[in-house]
Amino acid sequence: MNNAAELTQKEHWEELLAQQEGELIKSLEGAPAVEVADFLVRLSPTQSLDLLTKLPLNLQGGIFAELDEAYQLILYRLANKKDFAEIFTYMPSGARADFYQNLDGKEQVRLLPYLTKKTRENVIALSSYPPQTAGSIMSTDFATVLGDMTIKQAIHKLKEDAPSKKMIYYVYVVDANMRMIGFASLKDLIMAEPDDLVAKSLHDNFIYGVVDEDQEAVAERIEKYSLVAIPILNEDGQLVGIVSYDNAIDIIRIEQTEDMERFMGIVSTEETADYLKVSSFQHFKKRVAWILGLFITGILSSFVIHQHEYLLERITVLALYLPMITATGGNTGSQAASVVIRALSLGQITLRNWLVVIFKETKVALLLAMALFFLAFLKVLLLSSYNILEPYSIYRIAFTIGVALSIQVVTSAIIGATLPLIAKYFNGDPAVAASPAITTLVDITGMIIYFAIAIAMLS
Amino acid sequence: MNNAAELTQKEHWEELLAQQEGELIKSLEGAPAVEVADFLVRLSPTQSLDLLTKLPLNLQGGIFAELDEAYQLILYRLANKKDFAEIFTYMPSGARADFYQNLDGKEQVRLLPYLTKKTRENVIALSSYPPQTAGSIMSTDFATVLGDMTIKQAIHKLKEDAPSKKMIYYVYVVDANMRMIGFASLKDLIMAEPDDLVAKSLHDNFIYGVVDEDQEAVAERIEKYSLVAIPILNEDGQLVGIVSYDNAIDIIRIEQTEDMERFMGIVSTEETADYLKVSSFQHFKKRVAWILGLFITGILSSFVIHQHEYLLERITVLALYLPMITATGGNTGSQAASVVIRALSLGQITLRNWLVVIFKETKVALLLAMALFFLAFLKVLLLSSYNILEPYSIYRIAFTIGVALSIQVVTSAIIGATLPLIAKYFNGDPAVAASPAITTLVDITGMIIYFAIAIAMLS
Repeated sequence: MNNAAELTQKEHWEELLAQQEGELIKSLEGAPAVEVADFLVRLSPTQSLDLLTKLPLNLQGGIFAELDEAYQLILYRLANKKDFAEIFTYMPSGARADFYQNLDGKEQVRLLPYLTKKTRENVIALSSYPPQTAGSIMSTDFATVLGDMTIKQAIHKLKEDAPSKKMIYYVYVVDANMRMIGFASLKDLIMAEPDDLVAKSLHDNFIYGVVDEDQEAVAERIEKYSLVAIPILNEDGQLVGIVSYDNAIDIIRIEQTEDMERFMGIVSTEETADYLKVSSFQHFKKRVAWILGLFITGILSSFVIHQHEYLLERITVLALYLPMITATGGNTGSQAASVVIRALSLGQITLRNWLVVIFKETKVALLLAMALFFLAFLKVLLLSSYNILEPYSIYRIAFTIGVALSIQVVTSAIIGATLPLIAKYFNGDPAVAASPAITTLVDITGMIIYFAIAIAMLS
Repeated sequence: MNNAAELTQKEHWEELLAQQEGELIKSLEGAPAVEVADFLVRLSPTQSLDLLTKLPLNLQGGIFAELDEAYQLILYRLANKKDFAEIFTYMPSGARADFYQNLDGKEQVRLLPYLTKKTRENVIALSSYPPQTAGSIMSTDFATVLGDMTIKQAIHKLKEDAPSKKMIYYVYVVDANMRMIGFASLKDLIMAEPDDLVAKSLHDNFIYGVVDEDQEAVAERIEKYSLVAIPILNEDGQLVGIVSYDNAIDIIRIEQTEDMERFMGIVSTEETADYLKVSSFQHFKKRVAWILGLFITGILSSFVIHQHEYLLERITVLALYLPMITATGGNTGSQAASVVIRALSLGQITLRNWLVVIFKETKVALLLAMALFFLAFLKVLLLSSYNILEPYSIYRIAFTIGVALSIQVVTSAIIGATLPLIAKYFNGDPAVAASPAITTLVDITGMIIYFAIAIAMLS
């Protein structure tokens, strides 16, 4: 192949590549941002950045927002700061503020000069709210109109504003000082006559959140009222942001899994902690309190055992079944607690039902106790019949152990069902009635029951 | 007071009452449906029904939909069936189908004749899908247009349809056979020129669900793509319903709390079970498998103890600390598992991170083990120093117990962190690595570790 032919071939290849890229970009433009982001992550960062910057500007920001934090930082460090400023301008404001907060101080200072004044001020304002507040998760991608506009004028304003506003399903009506007066849904505007005033379609009895309110409270309000977005006001009643239903879904997920951790005796800290980013020592601090606490409470169980050492030495077979009694009690108690916590969380029961709940749990526990009584009886006969040194018949001992186990199961279920209700009564999270606490508590009650019954039936 | 005066007074009172009712109704009209529903529940059913039927027809359905099931039935049984048919017509279609399914067979048959043909067919169609499927939770309150309409025509069609359609944020574009071609958001329609064709604003690369798909998969898609609603297609690609973000929130809440139950060894059944409506025997069935399973597995622990009875008889103090070893191992193992389950659920870690996770959990456990070693050492000295019958010094025994506890804590944490990852690897729900299973497993490993160390250090 001579040089000229080689060149032609290479030109052909380049052409093919360019053609394919053209097709690729066209296809990416029609796809949901999150899928494009999933695809970009599979390319090399250079390729990925190259492709991203070839997409229409208004898509770049949305796609970048869907990348995970770590990958965002890789692309950011690779990018020409000026190119990046464009991506940044088109990012949804909430995601943008989050990204900005992930940069270290130096990088933040270096980025700011490239931004337009409006973007810069927006980023700084949204980054200024403490974590866990409504302010920290809100975005400013909302549309406002004035009450004395006509529907036609309002729709005209939306058309002008909307390319940069993600959320225009609700249009917020404000006064000249940005104080919120009410809202109209886009549906209301479409349904109304073009020459009517916006004020005529206005809902002035509206649900809102406040900037420094807990994010969970705001998410629950979105859920309760089935809102697509909730307006967030500052202390002067001015509209400063919105929190949308997808934020609410994230928060509910975090809150529910937090409940599960709490139920396992893991202390939640104020920050939303990402597993991998939290240091081992921080993880340790979140767990050590309960583990040590329970360990120390365990001394109580040891005391109970010590007190009855004479009984254990006389009838050593009793010691062998002690772990079985406490373990089964712990399991039934924790199960009862988690069922009650779930029913409370789903709104299936309220505190008013407390008696019904305890009655129902008792019935369930009685059924479990019956099944376990027979199993325990058989187990003792099976495992300990060789043990002929005892002063009592093996049947009598098996019966005693079975009775103690049955009572333990019922007591544990009642304790497990009651603790979350008590926590709720004192306005706490029912999940603080943690499983390890229940286990430790029923360990102690279980031993007391066990020895009391053994003394009563075997002395 | 003479009769005439009395009459005037009564007339005055009636006037006052009517006046107040007028004001009340006006205020209720402006309030969110869920708040009106909360208020109605506090009145007597007769009062409540009376007030409800005095509100505008288009509000009645929405308010009735927000009442809880039991109260809906009370009002329904009280109402004139013809009045009720009106409420029913205006109810959101999803809630209406749910209510219909709560009626018993006889009541269903009695209601149907009062309904319009359209409502009747809709109710029957929506009630025909199996529980837990996308079809069972979808509604039909969506708006469709044809691709060859102009924007103006499409908006005109929306105006005609919208009063009865709740969700018009997305407008679905279908062909003459109701096969879905794509969608346009209301925002797209507003932004476009009135004389353009709808086809020009069409998104044809769209996300959808299928009627017989699992409801959880559909909810997760709504979350992933941040949709306000997802279209549901039948096997012929025809649009038959939508599932909206508020259904998704409900499903995510149910799924997350189900995970918590599963983690406590409670078997979830196919039906979405309301705590109070499920019979005690059903509750029993959901819990008994694990409790019995673990009880039977506990025989293994008993065997381990029996095998080492000679050791326990020689050094009885060892038996006293066995429960402490197993309980602490259970707590640390369950904590590690719940932290890993949470991080998986929030997408903070994936299977690719398994080595990092196990390494991190080991480090956390080592820190816990150090703290516990000293506490255990002190505890043995404190509680068992009177025990001078032993052939070994109390320090040696305390050291042995401390070492066994430390190893148990690290092993348990590794087991706890690994099991959810294994479940995930086999495409299971990480939460099936239930806490009682972990507790039982580490009970056995803990005893083996304990006796092995005791034999090595004390023989």
